[in-house]
Amino acid sequence: MRLITYRSEVAGAGRLGAIAGDYVVDLAKLARHCGSELPDNMLDFIDLGPVAVTAATALMQEYEGNWPVGCAQPLVNVKVLAPIPRPRKNIFGIGLNYVEHVAESSRTLDTSKELPTEPVIFSKPPTSVIGPDEAIEHNGAITQQLDWEVELAVIMGSRAKRVSEAQALNYVFGYSLMIDMSARDCRRAGQWIYSKGQDTYAPFGPCIVTADEIPDPHNLNLSLRVNGVTKQSSNTRHMLFKIPTLIADISKGITLEPGDIIATGTPEGVGAGRSPQEWVWPGDVIDADVEYIGSLRHPVVAV
Amino acid sequence: MRLITYRSEVAGAGRLGAIAGDYVVDLAKLARHCGSELPDNMLDFIDLGPVAVTAATALMQEYEGNWPVGCAQPLVNVKVLAPIPRPRKNIFGIGLNYVEHVAESSRTLDTSKELPTEPVIFSKPPTSVIGPDEAIEHNGAITQQLDWEVELAVIMGSRAKRVSEAQALNYVFGYSLMIDMSARDCRRAGQWIYSKGQDTYAPFGPCIVTADEIPDPHNLNLSLRVNGVTKQSSNTRHMLFKIPTLIADISKGITLEPGDIIATGTPEGVGAGRSPQEWVWPGDVIDADVEYIGSLRHPVVAV
Repeated sequence: MRLITYRSEVAGAGRLGAIAGDYVVDLAKLARHCGSELPDNMLDFIDLGPVAVTAATALMQEYEGNWPVGCAQPLVNVKVLAPIPRPRKNIFGIGLNYVEHVAESSRTLDTSKELPTEPVIFSKPPTSVIGPDEAIEHNGAITQQLDWEVELAVIMGSRAKRVSEAQALNYVFGYSLMIDMSARDCRRAGQWIYSKGQDTYAPFGPCIVTADEIPDPHNLNLSLRVNGVTKQSSNTRHMLFKIPTLIADISKGITLEPGDIIATGTPEGVGAGRSPQEWVWPGDVIDADVEYIGSLRHPVVAV
Repeated sequence: MRLITYRSEVAGAGRLGAIAGDYVVDLAKLARHCGSELPDNMLDFIDLGPVAVTAATALMQEYEGNWPVGCAQPLVNVKVLAPIPRPRKNIFGIGLNYVEHVAESSRTLDTSKELPTEPVIFSKPPTSVIGPDEAIEHNGAITQQLDWEVELAVIMGSRAKRVSEAQALNYVFGYSLMIDMSARDCRRAGQWIYSKGQDTYAPFGPCIVTADEIPDPHNLNLSLRVNGVTKQSSNTRHMLFKIPTLIADISKGITLEPGDIIATGTPEGVGAGRSPQEWVWPGDVIDADVEYIGSLRHPVVAV
């Protein structure tokens, strides 16, 4: 299933929906129509575990193309929000997780040219999340080095503490796309949260694709363009630490919970690694995509 | 007011309470007794803004010592939890914010001996929070360098985006105590979240003292002991970046929200800065206090 959070009225709260062609199906309303029950928001849905995915999939198949009145509407009539508009904790980001990106970073940033021996973890607050088409803020008072990073995002499905690599993928709910915006000149004493955690620095979406529909999360093309010019184009197979390693490693010390997000790192081609270096400025447009998942497009605006 | 989150039954949910001598008063129940309304949990109370503090203070004064039946119980009969058992985002930590601590860190860790020119920010996930008397986990498989840091915690009261230093303290709800446990050997490529963000690494409490009852947050003694031996003893006047600066600085880029927690950094005397270095081990007991706020005491246990 391709799941989104959307709203149909200008001021309504975000609701959980499943994509069916050009339509979005309101899973809570469809379930109620059938005398059963499903949550009306993404986090409650994830909390229910695999049984919710199974139930929703069955309903979607049963009514495909014959949606009861009031249970579906054309996608063009709704506003798509970030799939989890308000994560319950900071997003986990993974730094330096593609080999070529390690090399380009060491040439121009303050990072080592050696490959990390363990995942490099940082975080982005819930307040950094924006949905499709929303503006990325460029605050010229604090950055002149705003950079892009396209990433595959992993959405956790179950509580995970000290899980093995062999079991780790069983704890994944699905996958999405995140752009890890990074103000390179806002790093402080080596800490990245202020450079990567500012408001609007985590464009996220457009949907979460449930894990059952991604044949191999380590074989997905991902790319990013600035004003239509390709800057990053790679494949998740080049990840240094694969997803099971990331989940096993983080969960050794930090409990992962349903709805937690892990942004798995970016491939080469960021602005900081170019010669001369390139940054985004107000008026620029960033778009990115991950295979099977979809694309995001965001204008950069001055604030 | 001194506010706590507590539960009176073994399995009950945490409720908001105000301390009155040896009693805890259930503010929601007291309000209902008077035909008015107050929330039953800390975050909802903070969300209401200063009007909630004013209303609660008036009720507490009116009924002082004559608590209606069912509205108060002896403190010894309840379990005190962390004042905010589940923060809505990661805690903001401030590194290297006391002059002498910058010096001791540069001698033994990988930090600079120069004073930082801007606040050094990191984060600790909500899953790292524990309440009074709960055990700090020592996982010998991933750390042999578990260290202590006593800190004054600031609890935000209102949404703050780009606030001035002059206005910043108006956005503070109150103050508390946090111990910023730090596994020094779990830093990775300079990032601190894994060293400071593991489960149980944020002992927090025992209460939140509302800002009106703290005469000067920059003149509070704070100290920490391991097995009864004093390791840290200082005063918040030695903070490098004072609280208004921290709030103004973070809120330049990251929106601060009601209930957000800023752990303001630790003074000298951590284990990493000693010669020879000292760490805590299973069986040790850490206790810490901040003037006006209270104390925490935590055993270290093997997991």
